[in-house]
Amino acid sequence: MKTAFLGPRGTFTEEAAVAWSGPDAELLPFANFALAAAAAERGEADTAIVPIYNSIEGGVSATLDLLIQGTPLRICGEVVLPVRHVLVSAPGASLDRIRIVSSHPQALGQCRGWLQRHLPNAEQMAALSTAASVEEAAKGDGTTAGIGTSRAAELYGGQILAENLQDDNSNMTRFIALAYRDTQPTGDDRTSICFTTHANMPGSLHSVLTVFADAGLQLTRIESRPIKHTLGEYYFLIDIEGHEKDPNVAAALATARSRCLYFTVFGSYPRFPLERVRG
Amino acid sequence: MKTAFLGPRGTFTEEAAVAWSGPDAELLPFANFALAAAAAERGEADTAIVPIYNSIEGGVSATLDLLIQGTPLRICGEVVLPVRHVLVSAPGASLDRIRIVSSHPQALGQCRGWLQRHLPNAEQMAALSTAASVEEAAKGDGTTAGIGTSRAAELYGGQILAENLQDDNSNMTRFIALAYRDTQPTGDDRTSICFTTHANMPGSLHSVLTVFADAGLQLTRIESRPIKHTLGEYYFLIDIEGHEKDPNVAAALATARSRCLYFTVFGSYPRFPLERVRG
Repeated sequence: MKTAFLGPRGTFTEEAAVAWSGPDAELLPFANFALAAAAAERGEADTAIVPIYNSIEGGVSATLDLLIQGTPLRICGEVVLPVRHVLVSAPGASLDRIRIVSSHPQALGQCRGWLQRHLPNAEQMAALSTAASVEEAAKGDGTTAGIGTSRAAELYGGQILAENLQDDNSNMTRFIALAYRDTQPTGDDRTSICFTTHANMPGSLHSVLTVFADAGLQLTRIESRPIKHTLGEYYFLIDIEGHEKDPNVAAALATARSRCLYFTVFGSYPRFPLERVRG
Repeated sequence: MKTAFLGPRGTFTEEAAVAWSGPDAELLPFANFALAAAAAERGEADTAIVPIYNSIEGGVSATLDLLIQGTPLRICGEVVLPVRHVLVSAPGASLDRIRIVSSHPQALGQCRGWLQRHLPNAEQMAALSTAASVEEAAKGDGTTAGIGTSRAAELYGGQILAENLQDDNSNMTRFIALAYRDTQPTGDDRTSICFTTHANMPGSLHSVLTVFADAGLQLTRIESRPIKHTLGEYYFLIDIEGHEKDPNVAAALATARSRCLYFTVFGSYPRFPLERVRG
């Protein structure tokens, strides 16, 4: 099994790719979302793993644009990981020798409280990714530390000086798996859809949501995203409980579609078990 | 007039602070959202300007957390700016001498196409903010360029080598103004509200949206945000047309409130004129 992902190696997205594919899969890093998806589209990878909600590596806009602009791939699964930051330096390093802490600016921001308490005098430097900061620190002289995943520490031979640096333990990152295949209903599924309604009419979103409410289908996420070049109009992105092949879901989707200008189902897939996130 | 903002100087948030306060205001940069808001809470600033939707400086989560966790400030206005990146180096520099391009990783990402076409061999380096990259490049030897705002170029005495580097001209950033004061209806207002419904009941969001649809009030944005420590439950954040003092809006808000577990109005404020964004 080959899995394409948003690289570099050692990022949260690689952690998600491992969680999705298992330890024996071949992982192929790509520099951006479109390239990772293109590898799966051409059959060079079975699946592409991209973040859809992750404040560090970005993802929301780029992934949604990819889906909206029409990849032939479908969402066939999801992975949810807690954000867990570790502080990494060179083998033999110790916390009291650290003078510089580097990471992606948003990872530094997520560890602000820890850094103020434990390394108040260290200089903070930006890196292109959490993984790049860990790689550099692991090769350094023990006065520089990176902030990233424990997988990056392992991958680049760094020493972990501290764990759980994140100020907020409830932060989650969500990734989707894109592939050509459709999934079969499991009884605990989620369906992701996207639609636009008729030109900003009061109640037009409501009339679509009415369909799902009447069918007793719970919304598990809703987001609006401005339509490019049409400021003031929106794509609505909605996740509902159930699988598009469940008869009640299929009927609701058909009715909802009839009330929209544009309507597409990105995919139905098993819900990632929350107890695996908390563990 | 004193305006607190998410610093440093020369970021998109400072541009928004200038657009809000006018050229004569005293602008006070702060290192994070909470500190900027705290300055306004203590009366050291009249207003705090923070991004609420900006893929470069972040903002969505941090600003929403600030609002949800209960600042006594209210949203009294908004500013919407197009994302316009310029390439800046030291005075006298020229494009063909640039060897290193630095900026916030997400700004680099937003200019990927331009950089591939015009500076394919330049090394890309991360900076903590767009403004920091411009400041450093302006003081450099003309082989390093930063990507940021034209205001940063002016502020730090840099030379602009190219304008409009962004691959996507439709990207907008949205900022809110927080202050103690309430605004009066202008006839073209927006009201931002946040609520939670009864424990994930199918149709509970729908029952709240029904209130606004029945009142003929258009939703201009909707977002769900997971409630911390309660994975699977959500805050819903909604912007509607109209002012909370408009009688029909006031009636709808009262009915909606009665259907929610938690319900708060962040504020009503004049809508930022879209023609000013496009200009």
